[in-house]
Amino acid sequence: MLLLGQIFEALAAQFDARLIGPADLPIAGLAPLETANAEQLSFLSNPKYQSKLAGSQAACVIVSGALEAQARERGAAILVDQPYLYFARVTQIWKQRHSLAPAPGIHASACVHPLAKVSASAVVDAFAVIEADAVVGEGAFIGAHCVVGAGAHIGEQTRLAARVTVTEGCRVGKRCILHPGVVIGADGFGFAPAGGRWEKIEQLGAVRIGDDVEIGANTCVDRGALGDTVIEDGVKLDNLIQIAHNVHVGAHSAMAALVGVAGSARIGAHCTIGGAAGVLGHLSMAEGVHISSFSLVTRSINKPGLYSGFFPIDENADWEKNAATLKQLHGLRERIRQLEAQAQTQNKAP
Amino acid sequence: MLLLGQIFEALAAQFDARLIGPADLPIAGLAPLETANAEQLSFLSNPKYQSKLAGSQAACVIVSGALEAQARERGAAILVDQPYLYFARVTQIWKQRHSLAPAPGIHASACVHPLAKVSASAVVDAFAVIEADAVVGEGAFIGAHCVVGAGAHIGEQTRLAARVTVTEGCRVGKRCILHPGVVIGADGFGFAPAGGRWEKIEQLGAVRIGDDVEIGANTCVDRGALGDTVIEDGVKLDNLIQIAHNVHVGAHSAMAALVGVAGSARIGAHCTIGGAAGVLGHLSMAEGVHISSFSLVTRSINKPGLYSGFFPIDENADWEKNAATLKQLHGLRERIRQLEAQAQTQNKAP
Amino acid sequence: MLLLGQIFEALAAQFDARLIGPADLPIAGLAPLETANAEQLSFLSNPKYQSKLAGSQAACVIVSGALEAQARERGAAILVDQPYLYFARVTQIWKQRHSLAPAPGIHASACVHPLAKVSASAVVDAFAVIEADAVVGEGAFIGAHCVVGAGAHIGEQTRLAARVTVTEGCRVGKRCILHPGVVIGADGFGFAPAGGRWEKIEQLGAVRIGDDVEIGANTCVDRGALGDTVIEDGVKLDNLIQIAHNVHVGAHSAMAALVGVAGSARIGAHCTIGGAAGVLGHLSMAEGVHISSFSLVTRSINKPGLYSGFFPIDENADWEKNAATLKQLHGLRERIRQLEAQAQTQNKAP
Repeated sequence: MLLLGQIFEALAAQFDARLIGPADLPIAGLAPLETANAEQLSFLSNPKYQSKLAGSQAACVIVSGALEAQARERGAAILVDQPYLYFARVTQIWKQRHSLAPAPGIHASACVHPLAKVSASAVVDAFAVIEADAVVGEGAFIGAHCVVGAGAHIGEQTRLAARVTVTEGCRVGKRCILHPGVVIGADGFGFAPAGGRWEKIEQLGAVRIGDDVEIGANTCVDRGALGDTVIEDGVKLDNLIQIAHNVHVGAHSAMAALVGVAGSARIGAHCTIGGAAGVLGHLSMAEGVHISSFSLVTRSINKPGLYSGFFPIDENADWEKNAATLKQLHGLRERIRQLEAQAQTQNKAP
Repeated sequence: MLLLGQIFEALAAQFDARLIGPADLPIAGLAPLETANAEQLSFLSNPKYQSKLAGSQAACVIVSGALEAQARERGAAILVDQPYLYFARVTQIWKQRHSLAPAPGIHASACVHPLAKVSASAVVDAFAVIEADAVVGEGAFIGAHCVVGAGAHIGEQTRLAARVTVTEGCRVGKRCILHPGVVIGADGFGFAPAGGRWEKIEQLGAVRIGDDVEIGANTCVDRGALGDTVIEDGVKLDNLIQIAHNVHVGAHSAMAALVGVAGSARIGAHCTIGGAAGVLGHLSMAEGVHISSFSLVTRSINKPGLYSGFFPIDENADWEKNAATLKQLHGLRERIRQLEAQAQTQNKAP
Repeated sequence: MLLLGQIFEALAAQFDARLIGPADLPIAGLAPLETANAEQLSFLSNPKYQSKLAGSQAACVIVSGALEAQARERGAAILVDQPYLYFARVTQIWKQRHSLAPAPGIHASACVHPLAKVSASAVVDAFAVIEADAVVGEGAFIGAHCVVGAGAHIGEQTRLAARVTVTEGCRVGKRCILHPGVVIGADGFGFAPAGGRWEKIEQLGAVRIGDDVEIGANTCVDRGALGDTVIEDGVKLDNLIQIAHNVHVGAHSAMAALVGVAGSARIGAHCTIGGAAGVLGHLSMAEGVHISSFSLVTRSINKPGLYSGFFPIDENADWEKNAATLKQLHGLRERIRQLEAQAQTQNKAP
């Protein structure tokens, strides 16, 4: 439970916001407009949902100044230019005030190599393994069952949730969050064909991850074959993503779950990739390229914009007919050409 | 090794079945019709495979009463209305009789917080971590290397295989099975854009999982942003599935491997989703909707039925020609329209 | 740091190669042609990149004998018939010479059942769990936090990275590599429908993996329902792959990340499957079949060759128009037929 004024004050230095309503309003939680009750704080960022404002039971709503009149009619409000960003910061305050920061130190059950360097302000939780020459920075959190390989670096204030693996020699920057099951630095998929068999190419590179990167549960970032796989600052990866060896992901790009990026692809800064989309190997994508879900990037994209490529869903019977016809599409084009040629001949006919 | 009569008796109260053949027939295992040997029990559920019945070497076959004559000719049989369901129950008996239930108790190496409540009849295996205020119900099994976060609830008789993570405050119902690598309650993927960077929206909700739910290896169910992510009773999720924040999956729905469901989607009861299919965010699917593998649901579906959308596979050369033509499809339609207009003009011509 | 001659000598028995240049050239690392510096060894395997040879700063390049003249002009070289394979072996030597083999033995924190059989030459790392009757072969490595279930077999020289699970009764052959998060032998996805609910079919089979198999991070291979799931010798699986129950993968086949293979599919030897492709259940693929990324195999394929099926990516506006038209494709075909019929009538007209 916080008071509305406490929240407002906590963000006063960051935003040019106005509080309409009593500072001592008790706030028991955050909720969407539709379900918020009289003790919950809510927000409206998309003008499309403006109609929901009047009916909301929320204790207070965060809205843009343009909606001041409507907001005042309803009750308490915080007026601010970027209500969604403001709301994001409120969630951060909420989390901070309601979480117990664990005391620094190494859990008695953890297995820390004598040659590892763990900052005195870091937390190492139960059964974590920190190998020789690994470095764990100030204020970092290494969750239960994590494995930090030999010579790996975990930056200041970075948080590894339970069961994260960072293998030998890989580096994770500052203020990163890695969710459970993440694997950083498994071998890239590299084999030379050798008479019907596959000969392993040892993966001698590592993974370098910048600052403020977040990586979702069970996502994998493979180590490079010779050079490193690189994830730049501010990148956000959702769950179950595959980043292959020697990929380079530019700063502040984001990918939804189940995306696969093949080896040596270069993704520019500020790109977004929708869920279960893919990028073939050795391609490059310019800054500001956006890929729809389920779409496969098969060539380099040099122009910012939105790109798509998936078969539209339909009732199965209709899809079946269209899919069957699709297998004759090239032939249909030929038939159209022929019809056009005939039509032209007839038009010319006297 | 069991006797045929033992199996039959064990299910006598559940099914109106008839045993044809000797109760003392030794059964060494279960096998498909084609490969079963004279000590193995088999079944025939799909009438399509009826022709395989006569040639099967199985000790005994489970078949529908309609096949009594053919079954008698072959040898021992169990006649029952739902042979596949009967077979499912036989596998359960088999497993039960051939597994050693581990003794209740907490493994000496496990790390259980003094404020956690673990039922005396539960098992907590090696190196498991149970955090403060977590509750582990009667007869539950917490596998090796599991992490049950602070305040999480694990229901009666629920089984967490090795290396499962259930994070803070999440709830798993009764008689659930979570396979290795499952992650329940990692942060949902929520960020507010902020001047070219992404600002984290703390995920303040949790995950609520009903009873009799099974979740496959390395599948992820993210915690809600504000409210909870909900998986209702009887849902079955295969491996490597992504369930995003605030998704609601209705009772007894099932999803094959590698499916991705984006944030706030609502999936009705009794739905099925084929492998590697996807559902975009904020959509809803009615009860009884079935989605084919590899199909992306891009709009709400209100009518039960089967829906599909994927490009049919073909020899590469043919696919290439059709795919290239597909990129001109809209133009082809225009050309057809023009031909039709011309044809109409000519037909009208005197 | 190695001397060029050391590398050359180490492979002398395996290749008919020629060294041009000083054996005492110091080699500090391996790198691609473009980025290699004067202390790095490089290679050229694809003649397409021949133009990059002259400008490379590499200490030495591995090239085919056909390029002898050009290589000599540039500086030191190793001439060999299969430069890419030679390079693969060099990476292996490099790794070997620069890694510290851990001393055999069981880490004090590991939990090894008294009835497990662990070879004296094997390594069992921190917090690993080896259950009753499990067998760990000579020279095998069981990484931190691995769980080897009751009765499971891990072959000689096989390496389980950190956090690998091999469940009860499953067998992994010799010289395999399993990367972090791999789950071998979770239950297959088998349920009998029972009045709107799903009844579990206990998965009574196991998983059998041959020799020289490599399995990528967080990949899952489910145990069989009755018989076993089988991965033959030399198979290479990338990350986040799903192999369902009773699948059979033929020797030396390879699959890229995020592939899903449904139950009981049979994949021949020497097949390749591109990233995020899929194979439906109960199908078979002949030897030497290659599937493009993002393509779904919906029928058995009996003829070797390359098969594809995905919607080509395009600028979103173009894709939208073509995708919308695609939903009317069957109708367009009818309209073409009608135009053809009309044209024929007109041609016949006097």
